[in-house]
Amino acid sequence: MLKVAIIGASGYTGGELLRLLSRHPHVDIVAATSEKSSGKPLSQIFPNLKNFFNLTFQPLDPKKLSEEADFIFTALPHGRSIGPVAEFVKHGKRVVDLSADFRLKDPSLYEKWYGGKHTDIALLKDAVYGLPELYRDKIKDSFLVANPGCYPTASILALAPLMKCELTKSGLMKSELMRGGVEIRGQIYIDAKSGISGAGRSPALSYHFPEVHEGLEAYKVGTHRHIPEIEQILSEIAGVNIQVCFVPHLTPVNRGLLSTVYVPLSSHAGLEDISGLYQKFYSNEPFIRVLDPGLQPNIRDVRGANFCDIGLALDSRNNCLIITAVIDNLVKGAAGTAVQNMNIMMGFGETTGLMHPGLFP
Amino acid sequence: MLKVAIIGASGYTGGELLRLLSRHPHVDIVAATSEKSSGKPLSQIFPNLKNFFNLTFQPLDPKKLSEEADFIFTALPHGRSIGPVAEFVKHGKRVVDLSADFRLKDPSLYEKWYGGKHTDIALLKDAVYGLPELYRDKIKDSFLVANPGCYPTASILALAPLMKCELTKSGLMKSELMRGGVEIRGQIYIDAKSGISGAGRSPALSYHFPEVHEGLEAYKVGTHRHIPEIEQILSEIAGVNIQVCFVPHLTPVNRGLLSTVYVPLSSHAGLEDISGLYQKFYSNEPFIRVLDPGLQPNIRDVRGANFCDIGLALDSRNNCLIITAVIDNLVKGAAGTAVQNMNIMMGFGETTGLMHPGLFP
Amino acid sequence: MLKVAIIGASGYTGGELLRLLSRHPHVDIVAATSEKSSGKPLSQIFPNLKNFFNLTFQPLDPKKLSEEADFIFTALPHGRSIGPVAEFVKHGKRVVDLSADFRLKDPSLYEKWYGGKHTDIALLKDAVYGLPELYRDKIKDSFLVANPGCYPTASILALAPLMKCELTKSGLMKSELMRGGVEIRGQIYIDAKSGISGAGRSPALSYHFPEVHEGLEAYKVGTHRHIPEIEQILSEIAGVNIQVCFVPHLTPVNRGLLSTVYVPLSSHAGLEDISGLYQKFYSNEPFIRVLDPGLQPNIRDVRGANFCDIGLALDSRNNCLIITAVIDNLVKGAAGTAVQNMNIMMGFGETTGLMHPGLFP
Amino acid sequence: MLKVAIIGASGYTGGELLRLLSRHPHVDIVAATSEKSSGKPLSQIFPNLKNFFNLTFQPLDPKKLSEEADFIFTALPHGRSIGPVAEFVKHGKRVVDLSADFRLKDPSLYEKWYGGKHTDIALLKDAVYGLPELYRDKIKDSFLVANPGCYPTASILALAPLMKCELTKSGLMKSELMRGGVEIRGQIYIDAKSGISGAGRSPALSYHFPEVHEGLEAYKVGTHRHIPEIEQILSEIAGVNIQVCFVPHLTPVNRGLLSTVYVPLSSHAGLEDISGLYQKFYSNEPFIRVLDPGLQPNIRDVRGANFCDIGLALDSRNNCLIITAVIDNLVKGAAGTAVQNMNIMMGFGETTGLMHPGLFP
Repeated sequence: MLKVAIIGASGYTGGELLRLLSRHPHVDIVAATSEKSSGKPLSQIFPNLKNFFNLTFQPLDPKKLSEEADFIFTALPHGRSIGPVAEFVKHGKRVVDLSADFRLKDPSLYEKWYGGKHTDIALLKDAVYGLPELYRDKIKDSFLVANPGCYPTASILALAPLMKCELTKSGLMKSELMRGGVEIRGQIYIDAKSGISGAGRSPALSYHFPEVHEGLEAYKVGTHRHIPEIEQILSEIAGVNIQVCFVPHLTPVNRGLLSTVYVPLSSHAGLEDISGLYQKFYSNEPFIRVLDPGLQPNIRDVRGANFCDIGLALDSRNNCLIITAVIDNLVKGAAGTAVQNMNIMMGFGETTGLMHPGLFP
Repeated sequence: MLKVAIIGASGYTGGELLRLLSRHPHVDIVAATSEKSSGKPLSQIFPNLKNFFNLTFQPLDPKKLSEEADFIFTALPHGRSIGPVAEFVKHGKRVVDLSADFRLKDPSLYEKWYGGKHTDIALLKDAVYGLPELYRDKIKDSFLVANPGCYPTASILALAPLMKCELTKSGLMKSELMRGGVEIRGQIYIDAKSGISGAGRSPALSYHFPEVHEGLEAYKVGTHRHIPEIEQILSEIAGVNIQVCFVPHLTPVNRGLLSTVYVPLSSHAGLEDISGLYQKFYSNEPFIRVLDPGLQPNIRDVRGANFCDIGLALDSRNNCLIITAVIDNLVKGAAGTAVQNMNIMMGFGETTGLMHPGLFP
Repeated sequence: MLKVAIIGASGYTGGELLRLLSRHPHVDIVAATSEKSSGKPLSQIFPNLKNFFNLTFQPLDPKKLSEEADFIFTALPHGRSIGPVAEFVKHGKRVVDLSADFRLKDPSLYEKWYGGKHTDIALLKDAVYGLPELYRDKIKDSFLVANPGCYPTASILALAPLMKCELTKSGLMKSELMRGGVEIRGQIYIDAKSGISGAGRSPALSYHFPEVHEGLEAYKVGTHRHIPEIEQILSEIAGVNIQVCFVPHLTPVNRGLLSTVYVPLSSHAGLEDISGLYQKFYSNEPFIRVLDPGLQPNIRDVRGANFCDIGLALDSRNNCLIITAVIDNLVKGAAGTAVQNMNIMMGFGETTGLMHPGLFP
Repeated sequence: MLKVAIIGASGYTGGELLRLLSRHPHVDIVAATSEKSSGKPLSQIFPNLKNFFNLTFQPLDPKKLSEEADFIFTALPHGRSIGPVAEFVKHGKRVVDLSADFRLKDPSLYEKWYGGKHTDIALLKDAVYGLPELYRDKIKDSFLVANPGCYPTASILALAPLMKCELTKSGLMKSELMRGGVEIRGQIYIDAKSGISGAGRSPALSYHFPEVHEGLEAYKVGTHRHIPEIEQILSEIAGVNIQVCFVPHLTPVNRGLLSTVYVPLSSHAGLEDISGLYQKFYSNEPFIRVLDPGLQPNIRDVRGANFCDIGLALDSRNNCLIITAVIDNLVKGAAGTAVQNMNIMMGFGETTGLMHPGLFP
């Protein structure tokens, strides 16, 4: 049994790690930390977990935790992960970090979008971007995995098959679509919609029930911190600089994220061809379900599950491809992928503890 | 007092007409028809209206209704409005038709998108598109107004100031933005999100509570019937052919519609300039509220109200303008504009019975 | 035009007063105070009110406000109303207080349930409990009205016709039901369900969207502060001591309150008789709608409206009467009744600015 | 591997059985029937199950199904289960029936509440009421289990420890509370609140999204068909006739059921004593979680899980015990208990495939 500690475990991502790992056959949760709830039993903060853990939250003491645990998930707020992660790594622990602190490879981008200098550039260099569908081999051997953001997960998975892709396991050197003479002719737009749990568990007027229920709005238009993350990965797999116009929206659901991606094509491509490309690209991926042409994915179908469902449609009047990708922002968009990364890093079956259907209705 | 009849009054649009007109000082509702609920008191079908009307639903008998009423709202399903409207007009009544039957000027477009030949092309020619902000003068003198669809209302109002506009009352011959050398450089995208009441009151699995609550999906991608309506009006006011890529989404709220419109610009334009253009264009419009730059509109703020709130943002990295427009799909997107049209046609104050704030929370 | 000031206007109750008064024909809002939002325009805190008021929130300065306004609504948190109200009264202003500070006539009850001595017992003695359906005549001549709580409003209106009632305008000295030999044979239970706006606008984990959406729970079982208020009024109109078992629940809707009241009867009473009693008792009340036997009221039908809809059912197997009463907690449960009280106090038509249907759907 | 067939598998209960059994280690689903969806792949009707089953819905042919499967779940509408169940039993299959057709032991009660004569009284006599916490031993040896209704599950589990109980495994002959001199002094009230999925998957106006969202109402007051089921079991375990006053409510959530149960006590009992009784009564039950006094259960904490969480509170002013019990109506209130019954019948570990936490948020 792998001894696991979760750092910053009283938020929604931490709770979701606890929920998923409660039934993982090779994992024993030995510690969970929380600043605010230190000393309280887990089940007080997460009544849904009553009877599953006999633990109380403890303060964050990396040295002590390194003695107790062999594998660490850090789910701290952005900017506060670097120090603790470095300590865990120093003690020889393998870490999946769910903050944004190790995602952007270029420290100047980190500084620009997150508002402070990165304080451990050596470690940043070693971190591997933890999207298993694209970086499985690197993840396997890494000791520090930067778990992707929720918007990037859905957006990148929606676009990856269209990009040139030398890094994927499928062996495609470039997308077959591109080789067929179809090119992306202009700006890519990503109109994303997220449930409220994506905003975290700290109460604020913006997420107070009566303020958001029966509401709908765009926010951080063109300025969301997930933009450079999306562009970094798309550019890397495409081999050229990719820039996107990204607008997130807040929708009154607990869980779920839908990215509607608009890609103008240079010339006519058949929907069947595009669908074939996606089917092939993801044919060995256990958690990607490419829907048949004509079907649209719905966040309700991945609720609580680790799937990313992808729909494809063609607006033939405008020669525009519309890709829709849905995930549960807390599972495939956070804790589920984190467990998947742990499985890969530890040599467990990749789907262990994760292969269950969404909760519908 | 104007004697008013509502045809097809047992659906959500009919109910909203009843609600709004219940406090209109110059209107007396003398008849309400419903096929399914004929013979039942209004308050049985709309318990919220209990004590407001002493009427029972009657069957649709245009001749009898023409004797009782002087002004007619028709809220019938698409395709079934042409006959009754023609009869009312023949009897000299003025009509606001809330179906799509008189919106598309080109009968071949109607046939293509609505799947049947239009059977009264002469009447279609006389109908005026009832978006007061653009066609106020024509509405004034018309006897048949085709009330706009909900998606077109939000989408057209979001884009109108950018188009060349000889038809608007503001006197702008072209958008000042365009004259300043800024042009739209590529495809316009409209990512629209609607509440469930937009789908009407007939029960169906797609709108059964547990199917849609906590759900989110795109539908009719690139094929929604409101597309030709949007394009017809935008093309007319721009003076050139405008084509849009339009994707609607179903969101789990009762009321509300948000259109997020993406417009790539040819060169850099300042957000203040764009905002100034919008402020000027809509400066005399009682129901359009252009928000200050940096603010985003929220459907919650127009719930039950006749406003269209418009937000403006610039993604300067991509030189892309993002316009967000919210309406209550049943008010400004249907019954509210219909009452506004009636006010204009009858010479009442245009805002009579409509000037009240949204219900928040 | 009556010059009105709203004290504590940035919460939901304050916002609802602003919304309702925005269309009151005899009222001019001259001031709105807020500690947190002082200096900010109203429309920044309530975007739904944009264009309706040209005011900024100001700090609470009773002397200055008394110079500006002639009528005062105080919507401050419990315990913080006494001082300001006393000052307004001293300056000769008429006041409707929406806090609980002047509702409980017995200062020892106030101290017991609200946790501090009442500091102005003379004023408390003069205050009139502002439920118009029961205390209309007293309200007329009062200078200080204690506006009822939301749970008490629905619960008292549900039970009043069953109690002996010397105070009501209907002239019934005792309930006819009681005179017919039917008596309440045991404990009255009130199982109440409220929407989240009842908890106010201050963010807290308990009302953070993902904590409550798709949730449902009882709270403050048998200990809610509205209990003594309900019992005080019921006892007063019954002429004997009435004690209730009251359990409130939090339900994931923005607005609405449903009280399900269980009354065991001593012997068989016909539902028609009971219904007749209720119809008669409330026959002249503009805002009480007693539904026909067999119909159940729904909070959706009073959304945004000042109605209390009442349903009656008899569990004849157990000889138990079940009364269900719904209100919008922010309207009939707070701001609507407050405006109704102002109308009565000022000699305006009692329904002025309030007689509009609920917003459905 | 046990070969299992699900009859009537396209509704919510059927879907939930499929979801739960998809990860059951000893079960192989070999057939699923649906009249309406016969011939369609499971994943078309339940997109959340895509990739989990390679089955299409088939028509209901008991003979053919008896050849394919060894264990049968029937999830047909009430009144249509008797025939198919009898056939399966005749073919020697063991059956869990999720309809109400075999729950009421007294055929005259069935006729009275379900409106038709029971057509297989011999089989009815053999059926065992499938609430494992009370009838585990009988379930073990039965070939036909009548799975409890959702309201009865929560209501009976809330009250069982208070009743005299010779049938429970805990060995308590009577509740210790009763032996201590505390008695129930009057009418028991059950105020129950259910999510919309409890109404099934057939679309109807009553469950059309805009009709119920932001709504709340009581229904079938004192007349719900679950009443005789609750009373039958309570009376059986108490050894005396128990009658309850039961009022269900419809609340706008997908899943979840809360029963608030009011029990007037004859004399003062301490909350700690009552809590101790409940803790002891359920001490060996894997799926009952009795909360500490002062805590209230919330439906959100059992979402998707097989738990029944029970809260206890005492209104000492009225000497009234308030028991609150929450379940997921589709899991512990239907499919989860059905799987638990199968586990017991087949000698599998009782919690197999069921021991996972609720999905929060």
